Amino acid sequence: MNRTNNCGELSKANLNEDVRLSGWVNKIREKGFIVWIDLRDRYGITQLVFDKDRSSEEVFSAASNLGREFVIEIEGKVIERKSINEKITTGEIEILVSSLKVLNKSLTPPFTIENESDGGEELRMKYRYLDIRREPVKENLIFRHHLSLEVRNYLSKNNFIDVETPYLIKSTPEGARDFIVPSRLNPDHYYALPQSPQIFKQLLMVGGIDKYYQIVKCFRDEDLRADRQPEFTQIDCEMSFVDQEDILKQFEGLMSNLFSKFLNKNDVIFERMTYNEAIENYGIDKPDLRYELKINEISNEVKGKGFQIFDNNDFTASIIVEDKSETTRKEIDNLTEWVKRPQIGATGLLWIKHNTDLTIKSSFDKFFSEKDLKQILNKVSSKPGDILFIMSGDKKNTLEQMGSLRVELAKRFDLIDNNKMCPLWVTDFPLFEWDEDEKRFFSMHHPFTSPKPEFLNQLESNPGKVIANAYDLVLNGNEIGGGSIRIHSFDTQMKVFELLGMDKEEYTDQFGFLIEALKYGAPPHGGIAFGLDRLAAVLQGKDVIRDFIAFPKNNSGKDLMIDAPSKLTKEQLKDLSK
Amino acid sequence: MNRTNNCGELSKANLNEDVRLSGWVNKIREKGFIVWIDLRDRYGITQLVFDKDRSSEEVFSAASNLGREFVIEIEGKVIERKSINEKITTGEIEILVSSLKVLNKSLTPPFTIENESDGGEELRMKYRYLDIRREPVKENLIFRHHLSLEVRNYLSKNNFIDVETPYLIKSTPEGARDFIVPSRLNPDHYYALPQSPQIFKQLLMVGGIDKYYQIVKCFRDEDLRADRQPEFTQIDCEMSFVDQEDILKQFEGLMSNLFSKFLNKNDVIFERMTYNEAIENYGIDKPDLRYELKINEISNEVKGKGFQIFDNNDFTASIIVEDKSETTRKEIDNLTEWVKRPQIGATGLLWIKHNTDLTIKSSFDKFFSEKDLKQILNKVSSKPGDILFIMSGDKKNTLEQMGSLRVELAKRFDLIDNNKMCPLWVTDFPLFEWDEDEKRFFSMHHPFTSPKPEFLNQLESNPGKVIANAYDLVLNGNEIGGGSIRIHSFDTQMKVFELLGMDKEEYTDQFGFLIEALKYGAPPHGGIAFGLDRLAAVLQGKDVIRDFIAFPKNNSGKDLMIDAPSKLTKEQLKDLSK
Repeated sequence: MNRTNNCGELSKANLNEDVRLSGWVNKIREKGFIVWIDLRDRYGITQLVFDKDRSSEEVFSAASNLGREFVIEIEGKVIERKSINEKITTGEIEILVSSLKVLNKSLTPPFTIENESDGGEELRMKYRYLDIRREPVKENLIFRHHLSLEVRNYLSKNNFIDVETPYLIKSTPEGARDFIVPSRLNPDHYYALPQSPQIFKQLLMVGGIDKYYQIVKCFRDEDLRADRQPEFTQIDCEMSFVDQEDILKQFEGLMSNLFSKFLNKNDVIFERMTYNEAIENYGIDKPDLRYELKINEISNEVKGKGFQIFDNNDFTASIIVEDKSETTRKEIDNLTEWVKRPQIGATGLLWIKHNTDLTIKSSFDKFFSEKDLKQILNKVSSKPGDILFIMSGDKKNTLEQMGSLRVELAKRFDLIDNNKMCPLWVTDFPLFEWDEDEKRFFSMHHPFTSPKPEFLNQLESNPGKVIANAYDLVLNGNEIGGGSIRIHSFDTQMKVFELLGMDKEEYTDQFGFLIEALKYGAPPHGGIAFGLDRLAAVLQGKDVIRDFIAFPKNNSGKDLMIDAPSKLTKEQLKDLSK
Repeated sequence: MNRTNNCGELSKANLNEDVRLSGWVNKIREKGFIVWIDLRDRYGITQLVFDKDRSSEEVFSAASNLGREFVIEIEGKVIERKSINEKITTGEIEILVSSLKVLNKSLTPPFTIENESDGGEELRMKYRYLDIRREPVKENLIFRHHLSLEVRNYLSKNNFIDVETPYLIKSTPEGARDFIVPSRLNPDHYYALPQSPQIFKQLLMVGGIDKYYQIVKCFRDEDLRADRQPEFTQIDCEMSFVDQEDILKQFEGLMSNLFSKFLNKNDVIFERMTYNEAIENYGIDKPDLRYELKINEISNEVKGKGFQIFDNNDFTASIIVEDKSETTRKEIDNLTEWVKRPQIGATGLLWIKHNTDLTIKSSFDKFFSEKDLKQILNKVSSKPGDILFIMSGDKKNTLEQMGSLRVELAKRFDLIDNNKMCPLWVTDFPLFEWDEDEKRFFSMHHPFTSPKPEFLNQLESNPGKVIANAYDLVLNGNEIGGGSIRIHSFDTQMKVFELLGMDKEEYTDQFGFLIEALKYGAPPHGGIAFGLDRLAAVLQGKDVIRDFIAFPKNNSGKDLMIDAPSKLTKEQLKDLSK
């Protein structure tokens, strides 16, 4: 062993002990006859001191030849430090070095190994192994480890069994695009990498494993967007003999346990809201409830005053920001530009200022009397000091735009309490979405989601209105989990496949084994899957999931460090085309 | 929730309680006015009773219409059972059923859901979800869950961090064949599925994560042999600032903990043996030490007696089986046939019986006097009652054949104590193996394995003699783990690549990022990987790893249940050939 102790654990309790430490040279300071080195490892930093008077000449001169990120092993005595460093746990001691061994040299790293690095994203990804030495990245990975182990232990204590499902499975074209793996032993045949273990966990339920979980990699060959990874990790769970309420309660338990263990928050309340309520009030199915900023419809109040924008549009709504009636013209213009960006696509932004001196001012004063404006303010229960932001258009798009505006307002006006955790179950999703391009229904979650029993008789007559036994868990505006009660009756399952436009041959070919399994005593069951990458980030109050993945890919699906994907050799290509 | 209790937990302590249970109809017995049903779930079996006098007519007649494997939910009262069943934990009670709901019907299963099923392997694999309902398969999966969680908790307590490494990586043709994944976003470029996270864990060491583990799927596109899976699970570990001894000690700790937790064995001794010792004494690098049956060379003792077999061959050796001098001619003939099978490839089997009446008899009495035979017996310290089996040939093949014979003798003579756990570290493997076909060296473990420092200067002059810092953990004749100290110096790494016949362009193209990483302060490091599938089986005293995998593939790499691999749609093929 190259060490008796790590670099984060020695203190005054160890004074005069002879120790051996190993680690990386983090910093070197020389001052005449003394050299100080900060020695770093995963656990912390310990100061080494080389003293021309007290160290041997050989050791002293060797110390002078060290460079940043050299890996060294030293022996020495723990002594008291004169200038205490209160920022680190080992700050009261230092090691008077008696022997020094260079375990490996290092070139000068392409960026500094510090909390705030000078390396750009690309450079840090190419040298990810150096990036991981940086405290914030390392701590993210360690947090993720503790998080997933805590999830495992909680679920295991609750009788869930971790079952590994296969990675080389069958391609099922319904849904997102699969990554494909050619089978060399079976020419012209292909495996697919799983987008989720969905069907396998359902088969485990049929198999009587009534509580299952797995922390598992999933794969989606999508055209990548920012911060989307082609491979990602899911906490995948399924239970039998339960209804939706049992599942929500079970996983509130899991999440509460995580809030308590990792954030020391013990009484976090889980809100609930239907999909429709979420859309109507927040313009999005994953509202961030750390701040209010609800959307209030004022269509009736604004019509008939001769203002074309209001008169010609079906839907007008406002968002109140309290105590911001003094927002400047410039800030409003800025926001207006923001909503007009193609990503949001609004045509403009209107406003009413409900001033503290009780005057009222709006961007459409020309058309509205003070009385008219007051009527609007009354409708939305505005108080003096408020500013109202108003948008008008068709209902669906306007709600979506206001949903985006709401998030932006919270950011700009600094309304987000980063210390809050606001979990929310969104329930009662529609079973199907109509796709105007393909002129057919798609599953909003996936084809195995059960309709609510009271909608079963409308399945064929009015599929667009059928509500599913589906739910998402939203945390601070992030969808961190989603699931549903599954179909356990084979004839309902066949009916749903048919409504999705598949004929019998098609769904038998792709999902015949599932339909077959449902004929052999499938219990009622349902489940949920959480995105571990996202969950880790959100629990740490961070946005970028890439920072919680050891070796992430970039937005083109490339690993810049190992340079993958890459070309194959001729022999490999020959094997593939057999 | 479809139940207040599971089917394995009610006892006399619950008498008169009203309960709700759900599960599968395991067995139905009718006797006039009473119907008994064994209700089964993951936790056990509870007897239900439907009594024409005490149950409603509706419930009673519904019970008569149930079939095997129907899923039902019942309500009823816990009552005392007249004929106690001591085989099950719920055997003192039964449930007098007051209401019955059929949650799902079932077709008659294609095989019986019992401990000893009447289903053949193919059928059980096709209906694996029914197979999993069987107690032994279910218990294997549950054991595997507990095993992997115990491993995780032990390693975490020992400061190991679970870090997920990517599945979509770069193909490296050195070694076994990769599964290949075409990248749609990067035409003509391919990912590969990892054969192990070897390089990534080394990069984590360079990154300062000084103790890493992961329970991870690995993939090898091999021509399949019996009981080999194209995807398999590894407990993958790596440590920095350690030497071989530190690693062996650390993982003896892990294994001892597993022996203690799961087998209640607390003082299991870990033997050690060099690769050469293993080959010389047991003819194999993974000897089963639950029995002796050592191989003893007797080349010198048998030469020069005019027996051509001995005289013409370099190497002759014997294995003693104690107390078996009365082995019959027929048994010996049978064994002789066995060693002559092409899988073993021996030319014959000779023997000496050292009888309890002190007479000596051999299959080559014509050439050997009693004195000659005694000389052999003395050499191998034989006692009366022994039988010696003898083979002759070139040393390498004969040792290998005797290694196989040894295992067969142990089975045939019932010498294996199934209650024993005999872990063994095999160390000091050669770094390279010479391949006669390709006329070049191959790595015995992999190209990142470090030579022992004392052999560094022979690396180029005598590569075939270089001993590696590599080790295997063998348990009862199964290789359950293997690892090595890795090369952490970039110039040694380059030298090894060159000795493997790669030119600079080749190894830079494939492993440039690793060589680069070794230049930036790579610490000394090493690790080990255990086969989880195998480990689970061996700890349960079983041979077939397939029984410990929820959804295994068959020997052609096919999943018979989902029918994978399979053909793609035209659209998918088009996407691939872009």
